[in-house]
Amino acid sequence: MTDARFDILGIGNAIFDILGHIDEAALTEHGLVKGSMRLVSAEEVVAVDNMLTEAIRVSGGSAGNTVAGVASLGGRAAFIGKVADDEFGDAYAHDMRRVGIEFRTTPLKDGAPTASSVILVTPDGERTMNTFLGASQQLTVADIDTDLVDGAAITFLEGYLFDPPAAKEAFRAAAERANASGRIAALTLSDTFCVERHRADFRAWLDRGQIGIVFANEKEALAMFETTDIEAACKGLAALVPTVVVTRSEKGARVITNGEAVDVPAETTKVVDLTGAGDLFAGGFLLGHARGMAPADCARLGALAAAEVISHFGARPQVHLKEFAAKAGFPL
Amino acid sequence: MTDARFDILGIGNAIFDILGHIDEAALTEHGLVKGSMRLVSAEEVVAVDNMLTEAIRVSGGSAGNTVAGVASLGGRAAFIGKVADDEFGDAYAHDMRRVGIEFRTTPLKDGAPTASSVILVTPDGERTMNTFLGASQQLTVADIDTDLVDGAAITFLEGYLFDPPAAKEAFRAAAERANASGRIAALTLSDTFCVERHRADFRAWLDRGQIGIVFANEKEALAMFETTDIEAACKGLAALVPTVVVTRSEKGARVITNGEAVDVPAETTKVVDLTGAGDLFAGGFLLGHARGMAPADCARLGALAAAEVISHFGARPQVHLKEFAAKAGFPL
Repeated sequence: MTDARFDILGIGNAIFDILGHIDEAALTEHGLVKGSMRLVSAEEVVAVDNMLTEAIRVSGGSAGNTVAGVASLGGRAAFIGKVADDEFGDAYAHDMRRVGIEFRTTPLKDGAPTASSVILVTPDGERTMNTFLGASQQLTVADIDTDLVDGAAITFLEGYLFDPPAAKEAFRAAAERANASGRIAALTLSDTFCVERHRADFRAWLDRGQIGIVFANEKEALAMFETTDIEAACKGLAALVPTVVVTRSEKGARVITNGEAVDVPAETTKVVDLTGAGDLFAGGFLLGHARGMAPADCARLGALAAAEVISHFGARPQVHLKEFAAKAGFPL
Repeated sequence: MTDARFDILGIGNAIFDILGHIDEAALTEHGLVKGSMRLVSAEEVVAVDNMLTEAIRVSGGSAGNTVAGVASLGGRAAFIGKVADDEFGDAYAHDMRRVGIEFRTTPLKDGAPTASSVILVTPDGERTMNTFLGASQQLTVADIDTDLVDGAAITFLEGYLFDPPAAKEAFRAAAERANASGRIAALTLSDTFCVERHRADFRAWLDRGQIGIVFANEKEALAMFETTDIEAACKGLAALVPTVVVTRSEKGARVITNGEAVDVPAETTKVVDLTGAGDLFAGGFLLGHARGMAPADCARLGALAAAEVISHFGARPQVHLKEFAAKAGFPL
């Protein structure tokens, strides 16, 4: 739609990340599953944080990273997510607005603090996340700014927000509204454990025909259908959703649009920290889609954005992706 | 002294850093002097922060970085500095304690927020700092924990703390106490503008014979004596202080001990961000000195610690410097 004020509206957990390096042995010792996201209490955040000998703090959250990528690529982006009325919440809002993202969700007062995630990065660049949802899980239907949903070509929802029941309701409302307004709702399955927790709900929701684009990595796609056959998993998703995007790390991505599949290779780059790779891939893909690009080009733009973010520590772009994309032949 | 419980006690501004990349043109446009530190208001922090399109937040502060380096090298370190009773203050304290630094200064309540510095990093790795002192300038004589001063082989003071008058008094008290207890007080001149602001005070203080080790980079040494002759500046410092350490960036460092000078080359490394280079050099040098190493070895250990911190973004070590130093032949 050409009348959209925003290319992408992201709705997700507004999380302040605490990132540090850790060795494989320490992960194993603490019984943590590499590459996963687990939900923890405020006390556990402190305990995991204590495993680190250095830490940087950056704004994060899956859909938040995605829209930061969209903005960095030169797209018009908005975000809905719940921070608390505290310093980390202020910093989060500041980081959104500094890149031009429309962010006006009312902060939570007198409740839980802003969400934080301790992200342990192993020498291979993999990240293991320990997330305290805090204020972010207090997102409700009342926070779904219908003006933003109506004005965005695509409303992008992160599967992680299925964990808090009120947020799940907010998600349904946002997707319904997007569809009613002739817009597209997109969803990422987020994480294999997230799929395990919400398989039936995800399935039922995809079955209702409200999701126009679904993102999954290989493991999430397999978990969704409890299979080890990736072809079967791709077909399963394609039977439910018009556009399916399955990311396969260094093997690239497969896009299936109305039954037609295309494989796109990954961009080669030095891997420092995989945090945000999937989020930024989604950002590039979605912006391409909102701008009417062919599926393979959408995936290439996604791969480009992902490559930048895994080449450094942290899940937000450190260069203007717009210039990066222009050099690669994508004028945005 | 072998009975010291701590190798190094650092006393300085407890500052939470906000770091981001910026190009040279933007610095010039805003009339900022590359490589300098300027003091700004809380409002100006927000304005400068808005110049960035991405930001990471990490604990910083000159003497704070120095003791973090000492701890990372395997030394026993303590810190005195004033944070506020807020989230950034909590994060700062957490970052100190996670590496084993003794930090028990009472946070400021119902006053200014924790200090923050927006650090603009240009493509050449130089950093330009814009510091809001906030709670850190509320450090007073009452915060000087004499038990820590008595127990530390060396008490290290940052020149920046000469800006707040009450903190300057606290400094004098700490140095007097260290001398009275048979310990060593060390001082860094911190920054050329800091030298301009406090030249007479620094000079008078060094003249009193209370400072056993002084750190300056070339520009600071020159500014101290308002000369362009580095030999004259080195001699000037050496006439006042038993151990003089002049750092010269990629040209290495000169150490003058009781009139005898030795030059030590810099470690070659890829420069990503110079933030913390001088602080970490001081950390390595001081730990070596506390452990009775020869001046040239102290400087080599300093150069090693500095090389690690300039090879990545942020002013705190991202590896265990102890292992780094062991490989280079410094068992600590």
